[in-house]
Amino acid sequence: MALEKVLATIDKNLDRSLERLFALLRIESVSTDPAYARNCRAAAEWLAKELQEIGLDAGVRDTKGHPMVVAHTRTAGAGPHVLFYGHYDVQPADPVALWQTPAFEPQLKEVAGRKVIVGRGSADDKGQLMTFVEAVRAFVETEGAAPLKITIMLEGEEETGSPSLAPFLEANKKELQADVALVCDTDMWNDTTPAITTMLRGLMLEEVIVKAADRDLHSGLFGGAAINPIRVLGRVIASVHDGDGRIVIPGFYDGAGELDAEIKSQWKSLDFSESKFLGEIGLSVPAGEKGRHVLEQLWSRPTCDVNGIIGGYTGTGSKTVIPAQASAKFSFRLVGRQNPEAIRDAFREFVRKQLPADCEVEFISHGASPALQLPLASPYLKKARDALAEEWGKPAVLKGSGGSIPIVGNFKRDLGMDSLLIGFGVDDDRIHSPNEKYNLSSFHKGARSWARLLDALRS
Amino acid sequence: MALEKVLATIDKNLDRSLERLFALLRIESVSTDPAYARNCRAAAEWLAKELQEIGLDAGVRDTKGHPMVVAHTRTAGAGPHVLFYGHYDVQPADPVALWQTPAFEPQLKEVAGRKVIVGRGSADDKGQLMTFVEAVRAFVETEGAAPLKITIMLEGEEETGSPSLAPFLEANKKELQADVALVCDTDMWNDTTPAITTMLRGLMLEEVIVKAADRDLHSGLFGGAAINPIRVLGRVIASVHDGDGRIVIPGFYDGAGELDAEIKSQWKSLDFSESKFLGEIGLSVPAGEKGRHVLEQLWSRPTCDVNGIIGGYTGTGSKTVIPAQASAKFSFRLVGRQNPEAIRDAFREFVRKQLPADCEVEFISHGASPALQLPLASPYLKKARDALAEEWGKPAVLKGSGGSIPIVGNFKRDLGMDSLLIGFGVDDDRIHSPNEKYNLSSFHKGARSWARLLDALRS
Repeated sequence: MALEKVLATIDKNLDRSLERLFALLRIESVSTDPAYARNCRAAAEWLAKELQEIGLDAGVRDTKGHPMVVAHTRTAGAGPHVLFYGHYDVQPADPVALWQTPAFEPQLKEVAGRKVIVGRGSADDKGQLMTFVEAVRAFVETEGAAPLKITIMLEGEEETGSPSLAPFLEANKKELQADVALVCDTDMWNDTTPAITTMLRGLMLEEVIVKAADRDLHSGLFGGAAINPIRVLGRVIASVHDGDGRIVIPGFYDGAGELDAEIKSQWKSLDFSESKFLGEIGLSVPAGEKGRHVLEQLWSRPTCDVNGIIGGYTGTGSKTVIPAQASAKFSFRLVGRQNPEAIRDAFREFVRKQLPADCEVEFISHGASPALQLPLASPYLKKARDALAEEWGKPAVLKGSGGSIPIVGNFKRDLGMDSLLIGFGVDDDRIHSPNEKYNLSSFHKGARSWARLLDALRS
Repeated sequence: MALEKVLATIDKNLDRSLERLFALLRIESVSTDPAYARNCRAAAEWLAKELQEIGLDAGVRDTKGHPMVVAHTRTAGAGPHVLFYGHYDVQPADPVALWQTPAFEPQLKEVAGRKVIVGRGSADDKGQLMTFVEAVRAFVETEGAAPLKITIMLEGEEETGSPSLAPFLEANKKELQADVALVCDTDMWNDTTPAITTMLRGLMLEEVIVKAADRDLHSGLFGGAAINPIRVLGRVIASVHDGDGRIVIPGFYDGAGELDAEIKSQWKSLDFSESKFLGEIGLSVPAGEKGRHVLEQLWSRPTCDVNGIIGGYTGTGSKTVIPAQASAKFSFRLVGRQNPEAIRDAFREFVRKQLPADCEVEFISHGASPALQLPLASPYLKKARDALAEEWGKPAVLKGSGGSIPIVGNFKRDLGMDSLLIGFGVDDDRIHSPNEKYNLSSFHKGARSWARLLDALRS
């Protein structure tokens, strides 16, 4: 019954919640342009004040770039200690002329039957982070205190690659340590179906430079006798995959595992059109491992791609040269417990074995990070699934993400914490683009979702 | 006996021949730098005057660039009509500081026991062309007339890619038509072994652009489902050759033929070190078709090389992109009667067949020319071999050239003539480099060689 009261408070306060969100949206906290540094600080100060108002011990903390906002509940409720992450910085409004209403003058509009909050940052990420703040506020207003021990960390440099984040975590490790992180910067499956992102692929980056003769050669005078490093590199690229799209580097799939049957069946049942997904980028046929659903290929299967290649003459027309070297940048997306360093070693060995006489290879590592996966058995995940199902009336989709979300890696590596990635954005929110919007239902039911989760966690 | 007298005249006149050559070498006819345009014209005028002096109807003919010198004998002797080609333009002297004596102050020096003519153009090509002029002069001086009908064409733009040559041939087709061309711009096998270049590989140039998605894609968000054009191109490159280095494009070897047994055995018996040849460019193992001698691989076998490749991100570091396209520049060296256009078609079909779903390919032709081969049975070749063997006391090596010599293609295509490529340069002449030289024996015995050939042709 306690929860019902909190939810009722959220409902009752919706208009005032929106006013608070609009106040935040009006602050032009563009982190990518130094001219807006004051605005970034103003947003941080606004948030710290907001969090103080609802009883948290909150402050603005300087970094080398834009400040962090850190807040702690003063009392430890029952249940685990959670760390909530969001970011208050936004992308520039450009191209300004394409906005139907000014980017920093937020409005509630009705578009195609949906009520939406329009304004820069409405979805990415001010609207999202405020869902959590509003949930905490409702507990405080209803019960006089936060439901459990909460730390809130709000960043101001997410749109510029978070340069201050790792040093800040390192310097404030003890203070920021919690049992689980809640990250609100992802999407739902669609307008009415919630989602939790539980799988993030890892990444291993390796550049390969094949060298042969000690200079570029005339292909007439030497062609037929001199080894061509472009051909050698072409063979390496061609040999990575077999005819079924599987990667043949020995040991590559060690630790990749197989998708949990429950998730696999959920993905299959999703309203997802391969042809629509691929059609949007001008393609029609999934090019990955044969017999795998596109979502599986994207979210739960490892890959090898060549991101760039160069060698010899690349200008207009022709030049009859056999180049002395050629290079390619490989990237491997990793899943499960695949070990990036072991795969790097195996890949290097795989390349070396294919080198013909007179060729040398140089490798340049451009970094590596393992995949991140929230175990299905995690009690936090279970509670989150229940909370979202209750609020939205249908089960949350357990999504993967083919790309990385750096903050999650930071929390795992630096603070040893798993993250629950729950967000209420939807595909057509136009984040980073003109006329960014956030569904009013995302904002309202988002806050209610957090309230349900916080309640579940304390019980 | 008539020949003996002509040869005696050449011997007797050697000092004056050298004076004439030196006068020509002193003219700074650098064609690559517009500042030397007057000098180029001066060289052309000097040559026209020289040819007039020995009774030819000679003149300087304007082009859009540097002028041509064209000369005709006034009387038609016995035997075929020959067209002699050489070029009077030279490379710049740079780097000037590295010359031991000034580039345009020719000297006769003794270096390592050999008498050599040092100066820019001594070997490339003024010294060489003057061997022919001196041979004609000796006939005129000894017998009162040239031995047969001779046309001489001396170009002034060889070092800049001969832009005016094709239009000039086209415009003066009838005047320049002869039975056979004599081209003096190639090398001997070594200081004491003459050579005739009888095989020039052809060339077919084709750029391949593989296109997939309609934009560059994020390799995290699309990797595993989106086709990567670099991989497609890598497969094409890897599939062109089999494990024995043979090209597997259907029909590719049609018309390539096999090397004549006599030439094959001559090449095998040559003092040629594979390891020295490859060692000079940092290689050790011939990379071409298995079971073929390096000279065979270079001179008489067709090839496919990739001269350049580019796609995706090629800057420093990494970028997780799946590019929308990737491209490679292929070149095919052709031999025998291989048909460049048929091979272009076969290659395009070969590439198209390997395209996976959603990929398109664009082809850009960068030109094609067939191989040129002087038939072993050619009566001109037979007489040239005899003449050279007589003069040098050993058989002429019948060489190939892996690269093209454009003038030979022009003579064949535009005037329907075969060319006898006979030159007296040697490997260490340092053409295009400081301290260019021409062996005195090349100059002297070169003139005698032409005298022998002209005598053989008239008989």
